[in-house]
Amino acid sequence: MIRAGIVGGTGYTGVELLRILALHPQVEVAAVTSRADAGQRVDRLYPSLRGLCNLTFSLPEAENLLDCQVVFFATPNGTAMHMAAGLLRRGIKVIDLSADFRIRDAQEWEKWYGMPHANPDLIAEAVYGLPEINREQIRRAELVACPGCYPTAVQLGFLPLLEQATIDTDHLIADVKSGVSGAGRKAEISSLMSEAGESFKAYAVSGHRHLPEIRQGLTQICGQAVGLTFVPHLTPMIRGIHATLYARLNKPLDLQALFEQRFQAEYFVDVLPAGSHADTRNVRGSNRCQIAVHQPQSGDTLVILSVIDNLVKGASGQAVQAMNLMTGLPERQGLETVALYP
Amino acid sequence: MIRAGIVGGTGYTGVELLRILALHPQVEVAAVTSRADAGQRVDRLYPSLRGLCNLTFSLPEAENLLDCQVVFFATPNGTAMHMAAGLLRRGIKVIDLSADFRIRDAQEWEKWYGMPHANPDLIAEAVYGLPEINREQIRRAELVACPGCYPTAVQLGFLPLLEQATIDTDHLIADVKSGVSGAGRKAEISSLMSEAGESFKAYAVSGHRHLPEIRQGLTQICGQAVGLTFVPHLTPMIRGIHATLYARLNKPLDLQALFEQRFQAEYFVDVLPAGSHADTRNVRGSNRCQIAVHQPQSGDTLVILSVIDNLVKGASGQAVQAMNLMTGLPERQGLETVALYP
Amino acid sequence: MIRAGIVGGTGYTGVELLRILALHPQVEVAAVTSRADAGQRVDRLYPSLRGLCNLTFSLPEAENLLDCQVVFFATPNGTAMHMAAGLLRRGIKVIDLSADFRIRDAQEWEKWYGMPHANPDLIAEAVYGLPEINREQIRRAELVACPGCYPTAVQLGFLPLLEQATIDTDHLIADVKSGVSGAGRKAEISSLMSEAGESFKAYAVSGHRHLPEIRQGLTQICGQAVGLTFVPHLTPMIRGIHATLYARLNKPLDLQALFEQRFQAEYFVDVLPAGSHADTRNVRGSNRCQIAVHQPQSGDTLVILSVIDNLVKGASGQAVQAMNLMTGLPERQGLETVALYP
Amino acid sequence: MIRAGIVGGTGYTGVELLRILALHPQVEVAAVTSRADAGQRVDRLYPSLRGLCNLTFSLPEAENLLDCQVVFFATPNGTAMHMAAGLLRRGIKVIDLSADFRIRDAQEWEKWYGMPHANPDLIAEAVYGLPEINREQIRRAELVACPGCYPTAVQLGFLPLLEQATIDTDHLIADVKSGVSGAGRKAEISSLMSEAGESFKAYAVSGHRHLPEIRQGLTQICGQAVGLTFVPHLTPMIRGIHATLYARLNKPLDLQALFEQRFQAEYFVDVLPAGSHADTRNVRGSNRCQIAVHQPQSGDTLVILSVIDNLVKGASGQAVQAMNLMTGLPERQGLETVALYP
Repeated sequence: MIRAGIVGGTGYTGVELLRILALHPQVEVAAVTSRADAGQRVDRLYPSLRGLCNLTFSLPEAENLLDCQVVFFATPNGTAMHMAAGLLRRGIKVIDLSADFRIRDAQEWEKWYGMPHANPDLIAEAVYGLPEINREQIRRAELVACPGCYPTAVQLGFLPLLEQATIDTDHLIADVKSGVSGAGRKAEISSLMSEAGESFKAYAVSGHRHLPEIRQGLTQICGQAVGLTFVPHLTPMIRGIHATLYARLNKPLDLQALFEQRFQAEYFVDVLPAGSHADTRNVRGSNRCQIAVHQPQSGDTLVILSVIDNLVKGASGQAVQAMNLMTGLPERQGLETVALYP
Repeated sequence: MIRAGIVGGTGYTGVELLRILALHPQVEVAAVTSRADAGQRVDRLYPSLRGLCNLTFSLPEAENLLDCQVVFFATPNGTAMHMAAGLLRRGIKVIDLSADFRIRDAQEWEKWYGMPHANPDLIAEAVYGLPEINREQIRRAELVACPGCYPTAVQLGFLPLLEQATIDTDHLIADVKSGVSGAGRKAEISSLMSEAGESFKAYAVSGHRHLPEIRQGLTQICGQAVGLTFVPHLTPMIRGIHATLYARLNKPLDLQALFEQRFQAEYFVDVLPAGSHADTRNVRGSNRCQIAVHQPQSGDTLVILSVIDNLVKGASGQAVQAMNLMTGLPERQGLETVALYP
Repeated sequence: MIRAGIVGGTGYTGVELLRILALHPQVEVAAVTSRADAGQRVDRLYPSLRGLCNLTFSLPEAENLLDCQVVFFATPNGTAMHMAAGLLRRGIKVIDLSADFRIRDAQEWEKWYGMPHANPDLIAEAVYGLPEINREQIRRAELVACPGCYPTAVQLGFLPLLEQATIDTDHLIADVKSGVSGAGRKAEISSLMSEAGESFKAYAVSGHRHLPEIRQGLTQICGQAVGLTFVPHLTPMIRGIHATLYARLNKPLDLQALFEQRFQAEYFVDVLPAGSHADTRNVRGSNRCQIAVHQPQSGDTLVILSVIDNLVKGASGQAVQAMNLMTGLPERQGLETVALYP
Repeated sequence: MIRAGIVGGTGYTGVELLRILALHPQVEVAAVTSRADAGQRVDRLYPSLRGLCNLTFSLPEAENLLDCQVVFFATPNGTAMHMAAGLLRRGIKVIDLSADFRIRDAQEWEKWYGMPHANPDLIAEAVYGLPEINREQIRRAELVACPGCYPTAVQLGFLPLLEQATIDTDHLIADVKSGVSGAGRKAEISSLMSEAGESFKAYAVSGHRHLPEIRQGLTQICGQAVGLTFVPHLTPMIRGIHATLYARLNKPLDLQALFEQRFQAEYFVDVLPAGSHADTRNVRGSNRCQIAVHQPQSGDTLVILSVIDNLVKGASGQAVQAMNLMTGLPERQGLETVALYP
């Protein structure tokens, strides 16, 4: 049994880790921390876990995590960068669901996240945790930076096209829609049901923090700088991300075959039959990314539809997928659930 | 491996059976029927099942079910009563999720369901599939009539009080709220999102089909006729039932202790700590019933809050629980999932 | 033109007053206050009001309200009781949408609201602003305490039965469901869409602040103490309250006729045809209360369904109705809107 | 008073016309037809209209409409093209909310709508009812073809850019999201709350019926053929359309000033302050289009956000705006409502 710790267990990615790991046959959650709720039973805050989790929240201090083999950070940005080194020194693997180690360039990170980086040297040791791109590096990693939810959906959707250099990389467009759980379990007016319900809006059009992360990922895939317009939107549902991607074709290709071949061996990326549309409900609660590809009116503009559950493949599920790889467990273990439809 | 068949695989209880059984370690779904979709792959209709179900819908004819050991009817009312006898004769166990065998009195059934019963003799052989009341009979049953969703939430909530004869049984009130999936996967104006979304209403106040079923169940528990006012409501969410039950106390009792003791050994009924409120989200996708009990202002009116997922403990999960009992499998097998929160 | 002021313009009842008064032909909003947003244009915070409101939020100080003839308090509890007297002294009529003057008994108020009352003497001068009961007193009032949202729906539903003394008043039950805007525009975890969406729960079963208010109102109607069990619930929609009321009949009556006669002259209370169910969507955005009455299976338990929009007839619409009465305007003026369906 | 008739009063655009016209001071609705509900009171089907509409549905026959001065068709496609000529001959103005007269080229229409056009000659007489483009022609029109909901949001958003020829017109992209009321009041599985709720998807990516209409409109604005990729999406809310438009800049411009100047005199098009995002809730129930313009990272890709209520500015409100123009009434009359927020 792998002993796992979770730092920051009271946000949505934290409780989602608890949901997934509660049924993982090879993992035991040994510690869950929360500064605000230390001392309280986990299932008192989350009655959905009654009978499945006997833990009490502890303080987020290293000593409470020392008998873990792997520690997840489900914390706000700016926490893992302080604590990770201490754990790594003791041989504990670290999987960070926050943004602290996602951006290679520390100055770029500081610009977008508005604080100095506490441990820029450690960034180089972190592996970007998208298994469909970095599987082998993740297997050998001690520190994994889990991708953001938007970046996961967008990178998987553009991946085959960029690898094959079939599109104009100067003018990529990612029009992406997220459910409200992406904003986290924070008391903010804009996330109230009376505000976010029955309404639809774009936000952060001038620049969202996931823009540099996506740009970095796409650049790495195709080996050259890309131009990207990224517009995130808030849609009135709880879970799910739907990325609608637009790219100009450079040369003729069999779009459907390209995607099917690229993801043939990827259990968690499912290319839908030609003519399909992807629907977020079909991946709700599952670690799947479903993708549908279109070339409307046989023109030169491709349309890729890529959907995930932002809390699973976009966060905690992908983190467990990385953990399985890092600890030598079967990659799918604990993640073969079925989406909750309807 | 148990070989299971599902008659009527295109409604919500049918696809929920597929979701649950896809991960059941001892069951293989051998046949799924649908008159309208015969010949089509199941995962074409339900992309959430891609990679988890290789079946094609077959016609709902007995010959397609003969190599099953157990057959579920997830059909509209009036189908199982025609087909069940033929299967039972061949030694196939039958679990009916429709209402055909729920009401002991065939005439009463005919009055509420508006059609003649095709096989009234078979009713006596059917066991009412609420394991918390009828566990031993279910183990020995060949034919199980699964309780309706409202009746499950209401009976479990009143059960300890009626067994102990602590309340006035002449004036019970069940004010119950259901998500819209309870109306099934049927093209009806009243279930459109534009109609049912962002609105709340009662319906069938003059008499709902679940009224005689609940009355029969409560009568059986307490051994005498009960007076019940049952008001169902439609609430703008997909899954979940919340029963708010009112009863007049006859004699002093320790309400919390009574419920905790009665359900102590019941894995799927969870009595929340004193002072709690039950929230449907905490059982979404799980086979749990969560119950909270209150005696406001120490008066003589008790308030019991009982929540289930109408498609799981209120239908397909309870059906699998019955199947486990009927086939000698561990009662919880395949049902130990965690609710999907948020 | 009546010059009106609004203290506390940034909550939902405040912005709802602005919505209604923007189209009121005889009222001009002269001042809107907000401590947090003073100096900011109102339509910057509420783009729905662009072109309809040229005001800037001012500080909530008496001097900013002195040229108003009527001032609405759309503030949290505990503000109006400090400011009302000063305005009244200068001849300004005050309409309080908070709870400060609703409860006759200051000690009772202090118990439920958890603070000392700043001006208990003023309570006696306040008129409870339910026009269907107190129309003539409201006309002459200088200070009106607007009813809470739950109390409005419940009192209107029980009114004809209590006036005619046809029911057992010792065991009234009000099972009431509210949309989430009832919790106000406050940054609270429990009101997040990820928490309140797709879920249903009861809350405050042991005692909600509206309980003493409803009890006081019902007692006044029937002239004797009443026993009431009041269970509020949160339902996943933004606007609307649905009260399901239960009462035991004392003597035979023509239920439908009783309600139709009682509310015949009441424009804002609409008794639906026999056999109907009330649906909150049909009053969304309107000042209507719609009521349907039932006597299931001709038994002795009556079921009354009463729906309002909690922000209109349950708050700001009712406040404008009171203002119309207090200032001699036609009672319906500015309130003859049509509900927004779908 | 203008006497108006509505053919097809039981769909969402029909009942929305009734909602708007009920409060229009210069219009009396004289007839509402419905084949299915003829003989039934309108307010029995739509209790939101009780007290505001005393009409009974009549059969959709010309004789029932002859004393109207203007007749709205809120019918499925293929009805108005049969009935319009007869009414026009008698001097009755016709406003068609369906697609029958939107496409200039009858063959193109037949291809997309899958039926022969019953009256191709009449198409040339129809004026496309977008007042912000065709105001003077609408004033003189006898027959107006109201724009579709998607086309309204997209054309208003691209209008200033195309008029000024500042963008590459070969590769326009319109990524548009609609609430579910856009699918109409039709009993279809895909519009059930259990299907459309809590989920997000694109549909008709290979070609939606509004594509040729938008293309025709944009072509007319800029005087040359345009290349357009149009991807419609379904978002889990009832009312609202959000268009996110992408265009490549050809030459430098002051984007904000361009839009503000173009729409300065347009009451129903509101350009939000620089840096804003448009939110569908702020136009819910109103005839407004709100637009926000962005040039992310000062690059060459423009992002225009354009929101409307699909049933108001996208259908019935715009139809009343056209009626006001055609009959010489003030353009805004009956349409100066405030959006319903929250």
